[in-house]
Amino acid sequence: MCRWLAYSGTDMLLDTILYKPAHSLIDQSLHSKLGVETTNGDGFGIGWYSQGNTAPALLRDVGPAWNNRNLREMADHVSSPLFFAHIRASTGTAVQQSNCHPFRHGRWMFMHNGAIDGFHLMRRDLCLLVDPELFVHIEGTTDSEVMFHLALTYGLDQDPPAAVARMAGTVERLGREHGVEFPLQMTLAVTDGVSLWAFRYSTRHDSRSLFYSSRVDALRRLHPDVAFLRDISEETRLVVSEPLGDLPGAWNAVPESSYGVVRPGQDEMYPFTPELV
Amino acid sequence: MCRWLAYSGTDMLLDTILYKPAHSLIDQSLHSKLGVETTNGDGFGIGWYSQGNTAPALLRDVGPAWNNRNLREMADHVSSPLFFAHIRASTGTAVQQSNCHPFRHGRWMFMHNGAIDGFHLMRRDLCLLVDPELFVHIEGTTDSEVMFHLALTYGLDQDPPAAVARMAGTVERLGREHGVEFPLQMTLAVTDGVSLWAFRYSTRHDSRSLFYSSRVDALRRLHPDVAFLRDISEETRLVVSEPLGDLPGAWNAVPESSYGVVRPGQDEMYPFTPELV
Amino acid sequence: MCRWLAYSGTDMLLDTILYKPAHSLIDQSLHSKLGVETTNGDGFGIGWYSQGNTAPALLRDVGPAWNNRNLREMADHVSSPLFFAHIRASTGTAVQQSNCHPFRHGRWMFMHNGAIDGFHLMRRDLCLLVDPELFVHIEGTTDSEVMFHLALTYGLDQDPPAAVARMAGTVERLGREHGVEFPLQMTLAVTDGVSLWAFRYSTRHDSRSLFYSSRVDALRRLHPDVAFLRDISEETRLVVSEPLGDLPGAWNAVPESSYGVVRPGQDEMYPFTPELV
Amino acid sequence: MCRWLAYSGTDMLLDTILYKPAHSLIDQSLHSKLGVETTNGDGFGIGWYSQGNTAPALLRDVGPAWNNRNLREMADHVSSPLFFAHIRASTGTAVQQSNCHPFRHGRWMFMHNGAIDGFHLMRRDLCLLVDPELFVHIEGTTDSEVMFHLALTYGLDQDPPAAVARMAGTVERLGREHGVEFPLQMTLAVTDGVSLWAFRYSTRHDSRSLFYSSRVDALRRLHPDVAFLRDISEETRLVVSEPLGDLPGAWNAVPESSYGVVRPGQDEMYPFTPELV
Repeated sequence: MCRWLAYSGTDMLLDTILYKPAHSLIDQSLHSKLGVETTNGDGFGIGWYSQGNTAPALLRDVGPAWNNRNLREMADHVSSPLFFAHIRASTGTAVQQSNCHPFRHGRWMFMHNGAIDGFHLMRRDLCLLVDPELFVHIEGTTDSEVMFHLALTYGLDQDPPAAVARMAGTVERLGREHGVEFPLQMTLAVTDGVSLWAFRYSTRHDSRSLFYSSRVDALRRLHPDVAFLRDISEETRLVVSEPLGDLPGAWNAVPESSYGVVRPGQDEMYPFTPELV
Repeated sequence: MCRWLAYSGTDMLLDTILYKPAHSLIDQSLHSKLGVETTNGDGFGIGWYSQGNTAPALLRDVGPAWNNRNLREMADHVSSPLFFAHIRASTGTAVQQSNCHPFRHGRWMFMHNGAIDGFHLMRRDLCLLVDPELFVHIEGTTDSEVMFHLALTYGLDQDPPAAVARMAGTVERLGREHGVEFPLQMTLAVTDGVSLWAFRYSTRHDSRSLFYSSRVDALRRLHPDVAFLRDISEETRLVVSEPLGDLPGAWNAVPESSYGVVRPGQDEMYPFTPELV
Repeated sequence: MCRWLAYSGTDMLLDTILYKPAHSLIDQSLHSKLGVETTNGDGFGIGWYSQGNTAPALLRDVGPAWNNRNLREMADHVSSPLFFAHIRASTGTAVQQSNCHPFRHGRWMFMHNGAIDGFHLMRRDLCLLVDPELFVHIEGTTDSEVMFHLALTYGLDQDPPAAVARMAGTVERLGREHGVEFPLQMTLAVTDGVSLWAFRYSTRHDSRSLFYSSRVDALRRLHPDVAFLRDISEETRLVVSEPLGDLPGAWNAVPESSYGVVRPGQDEMYPFTPELV
Repeated sequence: MCRWLAYSGTDMLLDTILYKPAHSLIDQSLHSKLGVETTNGDGFGIGWYSQGNTAPALLRDVGPAWNNRNLREMADHVSSPLFFAHIRASTGTAVQQSNCHPFRHGRWMFMHNGAIDGFHLMRRDLCLLVDPELFVHIEGTTDSEVMFHLALTYGLDQDPPAAVARMAGTVERLGREHGVEFPLQMTLAVTDGVSLWAFRYSTRHDSRSLFYSSRVDALRRLHPDVAFLRDISEETRLVVSEPLGDLPGAWNAVPESSYGVVRPGQDEMYPFTPELV
């Protein structure tokens, strides 16, 4: 499967989040602790929003993140208030740039850890349900990219949680029709450049790990001497497959079958239930 | 578009055909004379049959052929009685290994120069017509790979010319339904490891260049001093997008709307007409 | 050989200079008009300075520039007041990231078109002349990277034109010692992030093409209707292997055996003579 | 560091040795048990001898071995009586094809696991000791490639063990001159296409793991039901960084500070001592 990280908050040099932490995403690419695989070396991607652009920039490549010099360069020179990073462990599909997350459509960005069990059985049916105007934008062969385009088909632009619920419901329905007991396993992040939605769900209710960082004001009280916490706004939030370190009180598990919204103002957590379309 | 070469005959070191000729395919990757583009640097592939294997081996990569060291190595060390080579000039689709020709299915190998005009309009419809059991094997995003899987769907394994005719007829029908005046442009080669079929066709009857080499016995009489001609069997034949040199009498244009069969025994040429399925 | 472009002036989106012009560097990667090769597809690199960094950022990769999506992304999202871009046509040395220009050392950046004739004969001797502390930073196998490190050894940080003259003098001396009649062929650009030096020189006084853009105020008088000219500062200057278009009066050949300095204030041109160390 | 495998014996499909074993080299690229790193994903290489060629063929690439399709293809189609395979874990030097093992010079092939401690301090001095005619063939930046060219300089072609001993002695002498306490750590394999020499040595006499397979006749007596053992000649031998499985009696540690010779006839093991040149 994969590991990912979503950041929203104070304009931040990517290096600070991607490389600096003790158990950074780069470290996870070699030594994941909570992932299904310890190694996530089948490609990577970062996507970030910057001033003056509604669409995010992407840097994606097919080699491992840990030895990629262009990623190292961008981390040293790019800062952003909202960015995604993803490291891939292929479950068999080709290792190619078009299969690297995050995926983008207009101002939207999407990344996924998990899999559709039996995807080869239902890939064709899922593709048929994608809006024909969107279908032409599918460039790779992952289940994740199809999930993204299904969510777009189901109204991601209007109501992200509902669109993801319909996508999940569709995957589960088709899975069952093909005799797959537990079709869906996902933690996923989606953003329009302003808000960030993070979902944790699996058909068997035994989902991959997902964590969110605690409120900055609470963390500051716990750790008044941590300089980093003084430099970031109270709105700053991270959602990650694995904690980036072991600062006490910093990380909280996203509950099973839930999703959170990170946005200007109060963030919120809700239960997540797939919806039959 | 692209350039390609198909060889059938005496077991031959790939280098002899791929690199040695004055206007070799490697030279064409930098300086094509008859192609739509002079540069064909968006990936390459070779596929060859060897003793003891019914399925061909593939070496494909995303960089240009002219500077690829693994291709250079294989050319120096692999010999084969039947091989394909292809250099790609992308018309926009991603430069990735899964978009590199030749494509393979079991013992079958397929490569293409040309394009489906308006492919983005009919990609979905074409994919729907592919046998669902075959659809899962589509790994890339080219029109060519879909054409191959359509031909497989239409019986390539039983009757290659008929299957290709149905594929072409289907592309033209769908193209017209989407308002495309000249949907199909193709020179293509297909083989099962024994026989080789090469097609030249386009809806506007103005197809990309395609040439076949003259009979070896005739060439020997013309050029008794050319050592290479003495070393090859009378059954040896090349089909190429562009002549590999300027030996007088060596190269003949495949007629417009035709296909040839290279096989043990007498080779033959026939007219080609798309068939409405 | 190669083609390159150096930009200094108004903070500018890379796309405007790299992709937009009629005969952009990306176009030159496929269809160079004045280069030794028409195709420059053996890797590329860009380097740019941004606020808050003295060292430039680099993006370099081994494939052709024309199909690289990460380059396309950066061009759409990065703007800079001073950047280099380079497309490579290898003369035999390996196509690898460490052989892609521009090269960097601290705040310095360097790129080159041309070659040391007989480099294989004198590579070892040239390497020996590199300051041992600098030698460890040589990562690739090009003559260009050795030239850069020789110039650093000879005081690039103090007096760039003198350091380049000593480097050139050393190459010519060693070349003659090895029986090479015309050892050096170069157009090169070097910058410390503030000023930009561009050199055109070859032992046989028949150097590769190099052009600089005319003064912005003069161009505005010639072309009052060209919007681009109104948007840039009077200090803006381009130095390029080939003109990016055919705007009358826009491009001037750098004279044979000369170098120019682009800097805040008046730019200047001087004769260039190698110096024996 | 790295992991490697050397095979000599019955002409064998690469797949049988590279992919089939339970703890194959491909498995070790993801999950090394005895290596310094668990992941060896910074490039790979295979080199093999085939009939009619004195020089081996190489396939090397910069991505991980575990997801490389060209490696998978070659393993399925190439068989050889003598081949090397290597998976790399870079200790900082660039991940590029020219840094991938095995290295080749004429009919010689060389691969290495380990490192020269303080290589950056003595790289220049080591390069100076390489025969100038050989120096021009150094294409990458690894300590390993320099070690190979030093061994060539010291007479690898005449007396491999003596040449390697002189190389090792030179590295240790220069290391000490630069204040490095334990300069050398190596397991290495070298072959001329007929015999195979494998060395295990480190200055601190705590060398990386290295194993050789037991005599085939002895293994057959132990395991009369293992079909593979019946299909291979009595001369067949493997030398590996890690055992490929857990067949009792199959694997023996190469003793500390030793080297073995695998050749037609009786194989032998000798103590290894660096030699001061």
